Amino acid sequence: MPVEIAPRTGTAFELKQGERLTVIDPLGEQVADLLAFRRDDIGEVLSSGRTLDYTSRIYLTTGDKLYSNRSNVMLEIVADDVGRHDFLLTPCSRDTFRIIYGDTEPHQGCFGNLAAALAPYGVTPDMIPVAFNCFMNVPVNGETGELKVLAPLSRAGDVITFLAMDDLVIGLTACSALQSNNGSFKPIHYQIEAPYPGLAIIK
Amino acid sequence: MPVEIAPRTGTAFELKQGERLTVIDPLGEQVADLLAFRRDDIGEVLSSGRTLDYTSRIYLTTGDKLYSNRSNVMLEIVADDVGRHDFLLTPCSRDTFRIIYGDTEPHQGCFGNLAAALAPYGVTPDMIPVAFNCFMNVPVNGETGELKVLAPLSRAGDVITFLAMDDLVIGLTACSALQSNNGSFKPIHYQIEAPYPGLAIIK
Repeated sequence: MPVEIAPRTGTAFELKQGERLTVIDPLGEQVADLLAFRRDDIGEVLSSGRTLDYTSRIYLTTGDKLYSNRSNVMLEIVADDVGRHDFLLTPCSRDTFRIIYGDTEPHQGCFGNLAAALAPYGVTPDMIPVAFNCFMNVPVNGETGELKVLAPLSRAGDVITFLAMDDLVIGLTACSALQSNNGSFKPIHYQIEAPYPGLAIIK
Repeated sequence: MPVEIAPRTGTAFELKQGERLTVIDPLGEQVADLLAFRRDDIGEVLSSGRTLDYTSRIYLTTGDKLYSNRSNVMLEIVADDVGRHDFLLTPCSRDTFRIIYGDTEPHQGCFGNLAAALAPYGVTPDMIPVAFNCFMNVPVNGETGELKVLAPLSRAGDVITFLAMDDLVIGLTACSALQSNNGSFKPIHYQIEAPYPGLAIIK
């Protein structure tokens, strides 16, 4: 059964090597920021810069591997209904809402939600890097470099599935930024599946 | 007088609020990876994800501000002869050379050079994020998301100048990756200029 992450909240949980994590957009057009830390050494974390360098692409999908800051494969995308996710931008935060939206009493955003959920695992706010933003639609103009945050391409029930290549701690949110979610805050569902019998992890 | 960073090496130094750092490509087509940490609290560091979010562009140039992981402005680009730099990729490392180039005895790269130079300031390797890669030419195809590492557009004597918005520790290299530097390793020069008399820093 899927677990629900309520609108504008986040959670953290362990994902063991060989398990598959499916992130589900139940209503469509809702972003989920995802982070991964190595369970037994929390200083190792998902790295956008390493991953984009090794894959030579900013848009990642089925078959692509997500690397850590130490150049180890942490996750592999094994299914993807949408094909458009973001790996350029940091989780929305109080500062995002203050600077971009001009909010005077800003929500803590995905950054605050991730920091709170990951704190019991020893993760401090400064350790939170660029997230893999499931379903986030950030097209880049190759000529000018301009980027836009547009409505996600995900429709109700669309999923992306990750295979864990190591024992991980995952941080996951239902994103809190209006612009990223086409103007409304919706839940995110996720589901963890056991390893296939006899699965061999080849990194 | 400019200081020379020898080919395939790196250095670190303090840059005080209001000082200007000019990075010079003396021979042309040579990349310099730049990092900035806050001098009095080394956990605050340059953030590609925050910066790209606030500027809404992946190619930065004169007038653009570079933000930290805590959403403070660390540096502002105040002069730029080239107009094409990279802020997507992490510094080249032993793993880069092993994975991308297939080297069996890989050079420690900009990552190793930065880690060594920044260690006396309390920076550990896991604290090194995506660098601002001066003169690095990484065009992105907006349709497919494909990125390429092409020859820098910088010619002999071209410069980029940064204004420090806080007291910082800077890490700076003459990049060690063949692909990034059009096939040869060259030096980088840099120069620090005192604040303009009466300069007021408005972040």
